[in-house]
Amino acid sequence: DFERALKDIKPAFGQNDEQFRMYAINGIINYGPTFEKIQLSGNSFIQQVKNSSRTPLVSVLLSGKPGCGKSSLASTLAQSSDFPYVRTISPDDLVGFTESAKTSKITKIFEDSYRSPLSCIVIDDIERLIEFVPIGPRFSNSILQTLLILLKKTPPKGRKLLVLATSSVPEAVRDLGLGNCFATTLPIPSITTKDEFSKVVQELGVFGPSEVKRAAEECFNDRTPITIKQLIMAIEMARQEDSGSLIQNLKQSMVDFQLRDLY
Amino acid sequence: DFERALKDIKPAFGQNDEQFRMYAINGIINYGPTFEKIQLSGNSFIQQVKNSSRTPLVSVLLSGKPGCGKSSLASTLAQSSDFPYVRTISPDDLVGFTESAKTSKITKIFEDSYRSPLSCIVIDDIERLIEFVPIGPRFSNSILQTLLILLKKTPPKGRKLLVLATSSVPEAVRDLGLGNCFATTLPIPSITTKDEFSKVVQELGVFGPSEVKRAAEECFNDRTPITIKQLIMAIEMARQEDSGSLIQNLKQSMVDFQLRDLY
Amino acid sequence: DFERALKDIKPAFGQNDEQFRMYAINGIINYGPTFEKIQLSGNSFIQQVKNSSRTPLVSVLLSGKPGCGKSSLASTLAQSSDFPYVRTISPDDLVGFTESAKTSKITKIFEDSYRSPLSCIVIDDIERLIEFVPIGPRFSNSILQTLLILLKKTPPKGRKLLVLATSSVPEAVRDLGLGNCFATTLPIPSITTKDEFSKVVQELGVFGPSEVKRAAEECFNDRTPITIKQLIMAIEMARQEDSGSLIQNLKQSMVDFQLRDLY
Amino acid sequence: DFERALKDIKPAFGQNDEQFRMYAINGIINYGPTFEKIQLSGNSFIQQVKNSSRTPLVSVLLSGKPGCGKSSLASTLAQSSDFPYVRTISPDDLVGFTESAKTSKITKIFEDSYRSPLSCIVIDDIERLIEFVPIGPRFSNSILQTLLILLKKTPPKGRKLLVLATSSVPEAVRDLGLGNCFATTLPIPSITTKDEFSKVVQELGVFGPSEVKRAAEECFNDRTPITIKQLIMAIEMARQEDSGSLIQNLKQSMVDFQLRDLY
Amino acid sequence: DFERALKDIKPAFGQNDEQFRMYAINGIINYGPTFEKIQLSGNSFIQQVKNSSRTPLVSVLLSGKPGCGKSSLASTLAQSSDFPYVRTISPDDLVGFTESAKTSKITKIFEDSYRSPLSCIVIDDIERLIEFVPIGPRFSNSILQTLLILLKKTPPKGRKLLVLATSSVPEAVRDLGLGNCFATTLPIPSITTKDEFSKVVQELGVFGPSEVKRAAEECFNDRTPITIKQLIMAIEMARQEDSGSLIQNLKQSMVDFQLRDLY
Amino acid sequence: DFERALKDIKPAFGQNDEQFRMYAINGIINYGPTFEKIQLSGNSFIQQVKNSSRTPLVSVLLSGKPGCGKSSLASTLAQSSDFPYVRTISPDDLVGFTESAKTSKITKIFEDSYRSPLSCIVIDDIERLIEFVPIGPRFSNSILQTLLILLKKTPPKGRKLLVLATSSVPEAVRDLGLGNCFATTLPIPSITTKDEFSKVVQELGVFGPSEVKRAAEECFNDRTPITIKQLIMAIEMARQEDSGSLIQNLKQSMVDFQLRDLY
Ligand SMILES: Nc1ncnc2c1ncn2[C@@H]1O[C@H](COP(=O)(O)OP(=O)(O)OP(=O)(O)O)[C@@H](O)[C@H]1O
Ligand SMILES: Nc1ncnc2c1ncn2[C@@H]1O[C@H](COP(=O)(O)OP(=O)(O)OP(=O)(O)O)[C@@H](O)[C@H]1O
Ligand SMILES: Nc1ncnc2c1ncn2[C@@H]1O[C@H](COP(=O)(O)OP(=O)(O)OP(=O)(O)O)[C@@H](O)[C@H]1O
Ligand SMILES: Nc1ncnc2c1ncn2[C@@H]1O[C@H](COP(=O)(O)OP(=O)(O)OP(=O)(O)O)[C@@H](O)[C@H]1O
Ligand SMILES: Nc1ncnc2c1ncn2[C@@H]1O[C@H](COP(=O)(O)OP(=O)(O)OP(=O)(O)O)[C@@H](O)[C@H]1O
Ligand SMILES: Nc1ncnc2c1ncn2[C@@H]1O[C@H](COP(=O)(O)OP(=O)(O)OP(=O)(O)O)[C@@H](O)[C@H]1O
Ligand SMILES: [Mg+2]
Ligand SMILES: [Mg+2]
Ligand SMILES: [Mg+2]
Ligand SMILES: [Mg+2]
Ligand SMILES: [Mg+2]
Ligand SMILES: [Mg+2]
Repeated sequence: DFERALKDIKPAFGQNDEQFRMYAINGIINYGPTFEKIQLSGNSFIQQVKNSSRTPLVSVLLSGKPGCGKSSLASTLAQSSDFPYVRTISPDDLVGFTESAKTSKITKIFEDSYRSPLSCIVIDDIERLIEFVPIGPRFSNSILQTLLILLKKTPPKGRKLLVLATSSVPEAVRDLGLGNCFATTLPIPSITTKDEFSKVVQELGVFGPSEVKRAAEECFNDRTPITIKQLIMAIEMARQEDSGSLIQNLKQSMVDFQLRDLY
Repeated sequence: DFERALKDIKPAFGQNDEQFRMYAINGIINYGPTFEKIQLSGNSFIQQVKNSSRTPLVSVLLSGKPGCGKSSLASTLAQSSDFPYVRTISPDDLVGFTESAKTSKITKIFEDSYRSPLSCIVIDDIERLIEFVPIGPRFSNSILQTLLILLKKTPPKGRKLLVLATSSVPEAVRDLGLGNCFATTLPIPSITTKDEFSKVVQELGVFGPSEVKRAAEECFNDRTPITIKQLIMAIEMARQEDSGSLIQNLKQSMVDFQLRDLY
Repeated sequence: DFERALKDIKPAFGQNDEQFRMYAINGIINYGPTFEKIQLSGNSFIQQVKNSSRTPLVSVLLSGKPGCGKSSLASTLAQSSDFPYVRTISPDDLVGFTESAKTSKITKIFEDSYRSPLSCIVIDDIERLIEFVPIGPRFSNSILQTLLILLKKTPPKGRKLLVLATSSVPEAVRDLGLGNCFATTLPIPSITTKDEFSKVVQELGVFGPSEVKRAAEECFNDRTPITIKQLIMAIEMARQEDSGSLIQNLKQSMVDFQLRDLY
Repeated sequence: DFERALKDIKPAFGQNDEQFRMYAINGIINYGPTFEKIQLSGNSFIQQVKNSSRTPLVSVLLSGKPGCGKSSLASTLAQSSDFPYVRTISPDDLVGFTESAKTSKITKIFEDSYRSPLSCIVIDDIERLIEFVPIGPRFSNSILQTLLILLKKTPPKGRKLLVLATSSVPEAVRDLGLGNCFATTLPIPSITTKDEFSKVVQELGVFGPSEVKRAAEECFNDRTPITIKQLIMAIEMARQEDSGSLIQNLKQSMVDFQLRDLY
Repeated sequence: DFERALKDIKPAFGQNDEQFRMYAINGIINYGPTFEKIQLSGNSFIQQVKNSSRTPLVSVLLSGKPGCGKSSLASTLAQSSDFPYVRTISPDDLVGFTESAKTSKITKIFEDSYRSPLSCIVIDDIERLIEFVPIGPRFSNSILQTLLILLKKTPPKGRKLLVLATSSVPEAVRDLGLGNCFATTLPIPSITTKDEFSKVVQELGVFGPSEVKRAAEECFNDRTPITIKQLIMAIEMARQEDSGSLIQNLKQSMVDFQLRDLY
Repeated sequence: DFERALKDIKPAFGQNDEQFRMYAINGIINYGPTFEKIQLSGNSFIQQVKNSSRTPLVSVLLSGKPGCGKSSLASTLAQSSDFPYVRTISPDDLVGFTESAKTSKITKIFEDSYRSPLSCIVIDDIERLIEFVPIGPRFSNSILQTLLILLKKTPPKGRKLLVLATSSVPEAVRDLGLGNCFATTLPIPSITTKDEFSKVVQELGVFGPSEVKRAAEECFNDRTPITIKQLIMAIEMARQEDSGSLIQNLKQSMVDFQLRDLY
């Protein structure tokens, strides 16, 4: 019977641990209330899929600046769901695939999910997956059309699916008509307060406890947010400089990143 | 003779129950006079096709915001027609098909309909079927051209056809020249009054009878309509929150949806 | 000899009665002086091709709003010509053909016409034939180029040809450079006066003689013309309503059509 | 030797009488001084190619409104040249050819011309040959590039070539970069004076001698020129009308053409 | 060894006399100081390639109006260089080649040049080679990309290369990003002074010595320059006229050319 | 085991000395503090990749005017890194490759790098690699998408990668969405001060020690910077002139380059 068939193919469906290894290589840092609130929202979607019979499909867009931690978060959430079927569709794994190969790979992953009672699919970097470029604009319409359909298609009776997609170009998502495919959007912020800055710096263990606060005071300007990826990079760059104090060098790195953003 | 031939192939023509299962999984809610008026109009088209010999083809466009219930309504109407040939052309079933495969599938369904005395074809999400994207804009011209012809082509003598198409991008329909193919348009509204809101909330059975009115009072603002799909989603999301009252949480969900619409 | 060869293939050239059956299924209604004047012009082109040796090719564009009766008129004229070679090139018959298949089909029909002393070719819905869409704009350049040449190409010595093309997008015809290919344009009007309205309503036999005038008085506003196709549709819709008088319902249908035109 | 080889292939090079038959089926009408001046210019180019050794290639563009007589004139000039190699490249003969087939046909005709001491090539309707449409704009770049080169390529030593091209879209010719390929442009005018009008009407023999002047007086307005093709068409149309005097009818036809031009 | 190998293939590298025959069929006219200065600059580039070890690649763009003499000059310079490897890449020789055939032909010529100690490559009509049209704009990106690379690629150690490219659309060259590929631009002027005009007229030997000055006085207006190609054409045209003095006719031809330029 | 496997394929991974030969053929000139600062930054990136475990991928964009020395610097830095795997992806080596051949070549080089503990990849002229042209704009989306992914993809555990890309069209880099792929940008300046000018002139050894200062004084205007490539070219051109002093000629060359930049 189908139930048994489902069981048999389970190994093929099992979580793909390998795939998640590359995200959050330094571990996830809880940098404050904002971060916690996002995690709570994420968990709430997982609960909704588990519990509600009226919304068998919940699709959420995680959007934010490049490097703000979207992929890390989506990946962490998916893993924490403990759903029997968890998969990531990532452009990284599809380099060099033709449009139609990508399309059928994506379709396959959704169709497989329809055979599991509870599934979670991460669609990482959705604009990259559809080969989007702002100038032109150019993109793969066949991949887009496939996503436009799959992101709205109700799973078969008794099957439930959570889709977590990430994007750093929300205006492209909207212009491509993908906006309406998501039940809601979860905005992932950058580091915007001195407290958050301190928390990250402290967790990275580069500064002694006494210096952490001074670093935040001197290096961070809360009118110019920075992503967690840039902050880690800035600290590592600062550490390479031979001359000057670490705080002085970090300050310089931070200024460089802010300039780069303006330009 | 042809009459007998027609009879023989009837099973192949029979209603395709499977296809309609996925819509309106929670049952259709009659949310008030507006909804009833739409149902009446729909039934009137079915009668016209049955009775009038001067209009053997009646094609109607159901248009409205994403999630307002177009597909559910079209599907319900088609099933209620009791016509011997009822079919749905849905992008969901055509994922991964080539343009020309889609074109011949569509043509086939229309041609089959010409062999039944009374037919009803639902064309769901017509913009998706022609692979339309607003930026570019891009679409499949061969599928569009096929529809432009089939939506206007009079069935052979003695055959009658009702076409119910749905779309949430009426300006695309018009720009693509599809507007003139429909005899008329049936606009499907969102939830716009506190009464409609109450009716839906009550039917979903989440709130006790006493709370329904308060929920409408506190959570719904009639200047910002919401679709029935969003309302169901908002209620289910509100139910996941551990803290806060259900009404408080629903209020928050409603605000989120309104923000998302602005943005 | 060629004369005999011509005779032999005559059956293949004979009028294609089947093809014309689908137009004007309710019979042609003479709705007044404007309609008669158009018929006269049409006949005059037939006479010119028959009689003048200086204009062996006369190509005419019938243009007007969708549903105003262009195809019905072109078809009626072509049949009434009694020319030995009469053919219709209609997009309906070419659904699913490739561009090059369409091109050679069109070319074949023109070339066959060059073997008959007197020919009439109807090119129905010329913008559809070239797969035109206003957005983009997109169209089949190879079909367009073929038409641009064939519509101007003088038939061989002793052969004469009348081409009747129809279009409801005159600005596309002009922009595509097709305008200069026609010797003249015959504009087909909509129903614009109460008299024309009464005439159609009366011929359709829905109202008793006494009501016809009242119907025109109450339902038709001569500042908002309506096509004959819309008028027939409006009457048939009005007849489906259970409640309300027929005139009241027709009035409502007419308003609906006018709104649809504005929108 | 080469001289003898050249002689042997001469028949293949001979004038292609067939090809010229379709133009000017009613004979060429000399409608006055303007027409004569154009003919003189045309002959002067023939002389220049024959006589000058410094300009072995003379390419001329005949431009004017559709139907003004460009093809008739180019064809007449080419035939009158009595050059051993005379050929017409006409879109009419290339219907249904692929781009590359057209390109090699064109190239072949130019290359053949290089084997004759004196050659004349007519390129009729050059915008049609390159499949030009103003919207888009679209055209065959490979055919265009071939012409851009061949129209400027000096023939081999001792060979001389006159190219007569016609076009009714001079702005397209310029935008496509073809303008610089021609040594000069010969503008072909429409009928612009009552005298020219009278001359054509008289030559066509439709009016008695006494009526010709009255016809010009009453039917022609020198502020709205008409092409010779339109004039012939207007006269033939006028002759079909049963009622009204011939002059009255011609007047009406002329007004129709002027309206069509405005519209 | 390589030295001997180089020697052996030398014949294949030898100057291609045939190729240069078609330019400057009337011989090069030195029309004054401006012309001499250009020749000096040209020679200076040849010397630089021969002598300097720091600039093994010198690429120069000759730009000017169509017919000003760019190809004649480039060809003359290349021939005068006496470099062991001299080649012309001309669109004339590549009519009908596919993009990829052109690309490999071009690449082949550059690669062959890398085997000769001193080479000169003429790239004639560079915009034609890349199949450029201003409207669209359209061009062959693969040919363009090949040139963008080859025009900047330093030859292997010990090899030196002079590239002389010609173009009459400098704005296209710049927009296509080709501008930065050239070390410098050599602008080729038109005939701009009465002295230059006289010099050319005199060298062509059409006017007697006494008339030359009068011709310049009467026919040339130094506010409207003319290219040397147009001047030769104007003189040859003037000579064909039977009536009128030669000077009078030349004056008329000159006016025609100026009008054509405005239009 | 893998370690040994890695060792075995080392030769295939070894530095590709050949590839680097063509840059900086005259040796690298240290033209002052600005240049030194850039070199320091470059070395700091090498150290960061070697030392930091938190940033296993550091990708840097070297941007500046054409000829300012980007490729020379990137090449010098890569060679100085002494990393076991060093490769250059240069458009020069990919002339005539198809898009998909380029894509797999690029992917191959990145994948090979993932097998070495420390790697450095130079992507020279990144806009050329993706076949970018500003008009259109046109580019290879498949190559772009490949780079967008590879430039952000974290190497496998324990592998570290430095990417040095060069570009002279920073606005294209940004518009194509490549900007966010780089951790930072290293702007390479032109020669902007008289001191830098003197330094280069002196190192080239063309002027005697006494003249160097005068040359800078007379030939260089610090409001109009010049790239080092142009400066070398200007000096070599000046040396070819027979007449005039070397300084006078250099002054003229410099003016020419400045004009060219304006135009
Ligand atoms: N909460 C966190 N704690 C620690 N490190 C984090 C956290 N979030 C992100 N990072 C680190 O920041 C880097 C970028 O994170 P991630 O790739 O998830 O961002 P992203 O928003 O998906 O970026 P992109 O838009 O480029 O895909 C990663 O190296 C990750 O390890
Ligand atoms: N009248 C109704 N009563 C109860 N549920 C409804 C009703 N109409 C729609 N729904 C529910 O709302 C959701 C959306 O409905 P449906 O798919 O028909 O909307 P739609 O307008 O076709 O949306 P889309 O534009 O996305 O295709 C479905 O889950 C359906 O079950
Ligand atoms: N004179 C007429 N009398 C009666 N019925 C008519 C008349 N003209 C048109 N009709 C009816 O109106 C409908 C539309 O006519 P027809 O198809 O000829 O219009 P059309 O202008 O070609 O429309 P389209 O632009 O959509 O091709 C047909 O059903 C036809 O039967
Ligand atoms: N001088 C003339 N005398 C008599 N008839 C003429 C004359 N010139 C043209 N015609 C007639 O006018 C018609 C159009 O002429 P022609 O085809 O040469 O015009 P055209 O300018 O080439 O038109 P198009 O732009 O459509 O190609 C032809 O039927 C031809 O017989
Ligand atoms: N200095 C000169 N003396 C004599 N004749 C010349 C001279 N320069 C050019 N010509 C003549 O002018 C004509 C055009 O010259 P050429 O083809 O070199 O011009 P061009 O600038 O390359 O033109 P295009 O832009 O069309 O390629 C040729 O016929 C050539 O013989
Ligand atoms: N510091 C330097 N010292 C000496 N010569 C240099 C220096 N930098 C660059 N050059 C020389 O300048 C020329 C251009 O340098 P390079 O190719 O590195 O510039 P680029 O910025 O990559 O130019 P492009 O944008 O055209 O690729 C080369 O010939 C090189 O030898
Ligand atoms: Mg990410
Ligand atoms: Mg729907
Ligand atoms: Mg029609
Ligand atoms: Mg013509
Ligand atoms: Mg040239
Ligand atoms: Mg470089």
